[in-house]
Amino acid sequence: MPADLPVTFDDVREAAVRLQGIAHRTPVLTSRTLNSLVGAEVFIKCENFQRVGAFKFRGAYNAVAQLTAGQRAKGVAAYSSGNHAQATALAARELGTTAVILMPEDAPRSKLAATAGYGAEIVTYDRYTQDRTALGEALAADRGLALIPPYDHPHVIAGQATAALELLEDTGELDALVVPVGGGGLIAGSATAAKALYPRIRVVGVEPEAGDDTKRSLESGERVSIPVPRTIADGQALTTPGEIPFAINRRLVDAVSLVSDEEIVRAMRFAFERLKIVLEPSGASGLAALLAGRVENPPRRIGVIASGGNVDIERFADLVRAEEGESVRGD
Amino acid sequence: MPADLPVTFDDVREAAVRLQGIAHRTPVLTSRTLNSLVGAEVFIKCENFQRVGAFKFRGAYNAVAQLTAGQRAKGVAAYSSGNHAQATALAARELGTTAVILMPEDAPRSKLAATAGYGAEIVTYDRYTQDRTALGEALAADRGLALIPPYDHPHVIAGQATAALELLEDTGELDALVVPVGGGGLIAGSATAAKALYPRIRVVGVEPEAGDDTKRSLESGERVSIPVPRTIADGQALTTPGEIPFAINRRLVDAVSLVSDEEIVRAMRFAFERLKIVLEPSGASGLAALLAGRVENPPRRIGVIASGGNVDIERFADLVRAEEGESVRGD
Repeated sequence: MPADLPVTFDDVREAAVRLQGIAHRTPVLTSRTLNSLVGAEVFIKCENFQRVGAFKFRGAYNAVAQLTAGQRAKGVAAYSSGNHAQATALAARELGTTAVILMPEDAPRSKLAATAGYGAEIVTYDRYTQDRTALGEALAADRGLALIPPYDHPHVIAGQATAALELLEDTGELDALVVPVGGGGLIAGSATAAKALYPRIRVVGVEPEAGDDTKRSLESGERVSIPVPRTIADGQALTTPGEIPFAINRRLVDAVSLVSDEEIVRAMRFAFERLKIVLEPSGASGLAALLAGRVENPPRRIGVIASGGNVDIERFADLVRAEEGESVRGD
Repeated sequence: MPADLPVTFDDVREAAVRLQGIAHRTPVLTSRTLNSLVGAEVFIKCENFQRVGAFKFRGAYNAVAQLTAGQRAKGVAAYSSGNHAQATALAARELGTTAVILMPEDAPRSKLAATAGYGAEIVTYDRYTQDRTALGEALAADRGLALIPPYDHPHVIAGQATAALELLEDTGELDALVVPVGGGGLIAGSATAAKALYPRIRVVGVEPEAGDDTKRSLESGERVSIPVPRTIADGQALTTPGEIPFAINRRLVDAVSLVSDEEIVRAMRFAFERLKIVLEPSGASGLAALLAGRVENPPRRIGVIASGGNVDIERFADLVRAEEGESVRGD
């Protein structure tokens, strides 16, 4: 593995030590039904069971924990479509500091409520017209807060990587690892850990069809921007890959698969009915790629990160009902 | 522990060996939010992740596996409100025999479909007017099938007990174990295992308010019958405790708590939103008792069996919506 990347395997191992007893070591589920549908042995890393309901807590905590005492005295800020908001709010509370969170005004109700519930101050913006990066940076500068970015920071990436590290510790060598891609932090960290442990492992990202910025960027060799994607996978509705994640992903990621919103909803239904777990749209996209046959030549043993489970029951039921209507009309 | 009971701890350990590599060793989840709501450390044994989506597979497999070759050549029969049906169908398939299953005609659609999916023949009856025990016995006698009862058999109870055995192996000593009660097989087995390992552990059963046949029976010292209960907890809608489970439970069960259907639905919502797991009504009743404060003086470390997760998305959403309507009107 290249030694000149911004996150090393040592960083990941140090993050794992920092998170021990703080983050949940989430279980790895298997399902014979899933295996027979995919034609491979599939291991699901259940980050929907992580604190705050998503892998994001790992990165936020690892970043806030490495701030100086002076920085922590002033507090932290974050901008996020949802899970990183809760993650930063909880990490701040756990580490005895305060958080101000910039969230899209149309973020799921449960995510807004949960973030406020962790004691954070919430500032909202319109994600279709306002640039959250600029807003977040201005907010942090104005108030003297340490900005905890959702993916574009080595400490965040190293923390997020511990999900893949734990998965591989539990399963041993895998032929492939399938990881949802938003800003690219989770897959960058996962690839760092996975390829350090098993250099031949294939790392496959999954994006929603409408939000294929990382796939396009990897194909063109540089970060490209797309219009704000309209997809149910709100955690993956990004316009361009993060700079640091992209520097890693262009070296370590083998392929990116795309899934439709319908395929994501079908995976959410499968997770509910057969696996008995709750996945939000972004959290189900890796599973969706496997179920829809979007991972080419699926190898023998595959790990997939189920990255989050924060979805209102009402929204979940609406999505599933709408998808059922589609398939009734379509079939 | 009394040595004269119909199921011994050795039976449970032998069942555990039989089930190794066949049944899932289901994970134990914890939640800081749950702990702070209950005021104790709570360990949730996720039998909703078991094969067929419920603990019932453990008992059915342990029973079918102990049939003679001659019995297996003829096939098995079962009567069940749902999960034991799937469990027996799958156990029969796994062990190379056939199954005929007697199911109530109003059983959840997903349970009927899943049972048929395991290759079983299904015969339906009306649970408000017909006696399933008599029907099941007649069916088995007519066709020369070995009847696998849902709870009233030592092999079934010993198999079901392995859920509690695994939980206690993972957690070490607990102060209490909270177990949903239908016919009483799960709690009879759980109490057998738990009190053998930790004689001071408190074993608390949970029944729906409308289906309190075991509570009444324990109070009166003998099995009493109640009218067919109308409750959303279809797996606990029994009229009288099983004979063999009751013989064990009157010696080993310390208390039975009752929960309302509303409390069960609130627990299902909590499981979905906070734990990210899917529980059917019967599977959520133990958690409901803890959340609703129906376990008196909750001790320091509590195990609870989340016994099953077989519920249609549509029914799940309807139940939660109805409960929300109730609380809006009620508050």
